[in-house]
Amino acid sequence: MSLAIGLVGLGAIARAQHLPAIDAVDGVHLAAIASRNATLPDLPGYPDIESLLAEQPGIKAISLCTPPQGRFEQAMAVLQADRHLMLEKPPGTTVCEVERLRDEAARRGLSLFTTWHSREAAAVDLARDWLAGRELLTIRIDWREDVRKWHPGQTWIWQAGGLGVFDPGINALSILTKLLSDVPRVLCSDFETPANSQTPIAAILEMEAQGVPITAQFDWRETGCELWSIHIETTDGAATLDQGGARLRIGGTVQPVETASEYQRLYARFRNLVAQGQSEVDLSPLRLVADAFLNAKTRPTAAFHEDINA
Amino acid sequence: MSLAIGLVGLGAIARAQHLPAIDAVDGVHLAAIASRNATLPDLPGYPDIESLLAEQPGIKAISLCTPPQGRFEQAMAVLQADRHLMLEKPPGTTVCEVERLRDEAARRGLSLFTTWHSREAAAVDLARDWLAGRELLTIRIDWREDVRKWHPGQTWIWQAGGLGVFDPGINALSILTKLLSDVPRVLCSDFETPANSQTPIAAILEMEAQGVPITAQFDWRETGCELWSIHIETTDGAATLDQGGARLRIGGTVQPVETASEYQRLYARFRNLVAQGQSEVDLSPLRLVADAFLNAKTRPTAAFHEDINA
Repeated sequence: MSLAIGLVGLGAIARAQHLPAIDAVDGVHLAAIASRNATLPDLPGYPDIESLLAEQPGIKAISLCTPPQGRFEQAMAVLQADRHLMLEKPPGTTVCEVERLRDEAARRGLSLFTTWHSREAAAVDLARDWLAGRELLTIRIDWREDVRKWHPGQTWIWQAGGLGVFDPGINALSILTKLLSDVPRVLCSDFETPANSQTPIAAILEMEAQGVPITAQFDWRETGCELWSIHIETTDGAATLDQGGARLRIGGTVQPVETASEYQRLYARFRNLVAQGQSEVDLSPLRLVADAFLNAKTRPTAAFHEDINA
Repeated sequence: MSLAIGLVGLGAIARAQHLPAIDAVDGVHLAAIASRNATLPDLPGYPDIESLLAEQPGIKAISLCTPPQGRFEQAMAVLQADRHLMLEKPPGTTVCEVERLRDEAARRGLSLFTTWHSREAAAVDLARDWLAGRELLTIRIDWREDVRKWHPGQTWIWQAGGLGVFDPGINALSILTKLLSDVPRVLCSDFETPANSQTPIAAILEMEAQGVPITAQFDWRETGCELWSIHIETTDGAATLDQGGARLRIGGTVQPVETASEYQRLYARFRNLVAQGQSEVDLSPLRLVADAFLNAKTRPTAAFHEDINA
């Protein structure tokens, strides 16, 4: 029987990724929407999660695509109404709140899936397998994109709990923690935080894992050559995972990979977790980010204005 | 047989607390010191942890009292030399580094003890027992002290990873997490960070646990009435744990407690953990602090100078 899914939040990520993925994956279907100010044709729509849960007792699974701030209350409402729950990344504004959700889901025998979509990019598994048999020397992450292009009007990313440049950066860290057996530890972190923001617009992390140095550079001010790459050096050659994990070059050669849709893989996994009565809650990327904040040297930098002519 | 302890770091906390506690507790004795620039009469002294470990194979347990920055390398050296380890609070600069230590100790069958000395204050157990049978309404923490008086010359507290006012504040949070069954989650946090510091000199945390609001106010600028108190309101009366956990008032009445030395209780526990081949690693206070940093609204405030006439 197909799993009926209620989708909460109908912003950019929901429209670009969640709707087409749910449509494409066997065994799941979209059954209702909760959104303050948007609906979809031919689908029941509710202004908030509470009314969706109350009026749709047959919907046993909810996918939350709202910004992280305020999502805990929605997530807890879903679990307390005994529905399975899939959380868009990041799974929360704090580590402790997601641990509370994990405990609540376990107590009720519900499936909780904290997703990290970049881990499902086409070449990530291949990179992990390539690295597994080799001795690591170093990893360098470059994650540079144009915030104005990808996050227009999203003021929540600049507010406390919005993660700033770690909103994309946590995608790189989610791949990193999938590639390695140890969770890295943050040795030091340098933040550049706009004068009018609570979160960094750029960050450098020096980390260590398996005894080797790992550097990450995140920058949201890139207007020229955007880059989402992880460069891995080993005693037996180098490889670069780029395009956000979609492509792997070993030496100079691009490796063949199957085309994969990150979000299709997420929904297929969620369907399987629910069917098997299991949860998948990996908080290591969020713990790394919390550690970076805990350990940060912050440098104030120019105020950020979305309209650069304003 | 008495447990021989090597003490690393001979700063203020080691001299004020660790030395007399080791002296007073049955079944442990101080066998050597590692300190860059200090020794004790009639005791072997080493300039660093590595030489102590190399020259004292009979010392099976180490207590680290150095500042948190740089302590991971010392701690890992201890574990990799197959010695049991007790860590002064905070157990590290990041959550992930302490998890790595926990995993290393487990792999080697060693005892790791991440201490929270304020949990051993005389009235904390009594407060927990009193609260256990009651319905909680709210908790308010006031932790106000004079940093110049308690931390003279300690520049590391202002550097990244030094925690700032959370250095004392984490003591309150360690009591809080002992009083409650749920780990609280941080709803919002406000930091005041001196212009010349990487860490806050004052902070307000709004938290929630068991469905009730918990507020903490930490301030390191108190020159008048210092205060280390936790005020607990229930549907069945109120209680105040003050003097950093040493005294409990229920209604207006101070409760009788045994005199306890926090650090004596820690060393007795460490002795028992080693004897039983067990570890005690509770990271919930540090995770709460990391969440507060992750979630913080930071307000720059006046530069801090230890000599106010400077």
